[in-house]
Amino acid sequence: MNNNTKMKIARPAFEVFEAFVDPEKIGNFWFSSSSERWTEGKAIKLRYEEYNAEGDIEVKEIVPGTKIAFEWDYGTMHRVTITFTPDEEGTTLVEVNEEGFTKDIDSIPLIVDNKGGWMYMLTCLKGYMEHGITTLRGALVH
Amino acid sequence: MNNNTKMKIARPAFEVFEAFVDPEKIGNFWFSSSSERWTEGKAIKLRYEEYNAEGDIEVKEIVPGTKIAFEWDYGTMHRVTITFTPDEEGTTLVEVNEEGFTKDIDSIPLIVDNKGGWMYMLTCLKGYMEHGITTLRGALVH
Repeated sequence: MNNNTKMKIARPAFEVFEAFVDPEKIGNFWFSSSSERWTEGKAIKLRYEEYNAEGDIEVKEIVPGTKIAFEWDYGTMHRVTITFTPDEEGTTLVEVNEEGFTKDIDSIPLIVDNKGGWMYMLTCLKGYMEHGITTLRGALVH
Repeated sequence: MNNNTKMKIARPAFEVFEAFVDPEKIGNFWFSSSSERWTEGKAIKLRYEEYNAEGDIEVKEIVPGTKIAFEWDYGTMHRVTITFTPDEEGTTLVEVNEEGFTKDIDSIPLIVDNKGGWMYMLTCLKGYMEHGITTLRGALVH
């Protein structure tokens, strides 16, 4: 099964796309750092300084300004697809779809935690893109 | 089973508590309106203008600046407890705990959607409390 989350962000699609792939920008709303620019076929190391955690993604597809697909190990390998669709003037519908969850009782905490993570990231992204705020991230307590 | 979400917000506990119970404030980060001030035993109508939706809560417990507990009909009656715990100087740990979910496969979408909702609300609350931003809410697309 999958987790799907969609949010409107009042910035052009190309700018929102760049916030993910440009390692100078990701630390403003999500992971604290990304080892290099996201391009097709690249393995990228993402670090979350605040939680002393890191993980690797493999970038599978990039359509500039439109789509990012990557895979990461989330217990099993999951595919994450982020799409950027122009909406009203200057506004983008950002959709995150993560596939690969096992639909069983034992997986509920993993699926729920993952949903919370995407929603948090997208809201932090909205705050960064629309207001330049970079301090919403890193505030969860587990 | 329950959904539990915790976030640090850099404002004093009493101010964060007031954002929920004061009907002049809730529209800045969550529902667009609340029928009256939340006090123990009150039935409150919450409206979400953007989604043309409304619902009722019954306030079960209020400890000013510290705790809010209410019940709402989420398929079955659920109890939601929001606690405000002073953390570092001027910072509050806000914890939302919703109890009453059935732990079965068919309930997964409900539990997941609920988690996303709480995470979204808390991040919007953080943006409002720390930066006075009131435009992060109402941007989800279903």
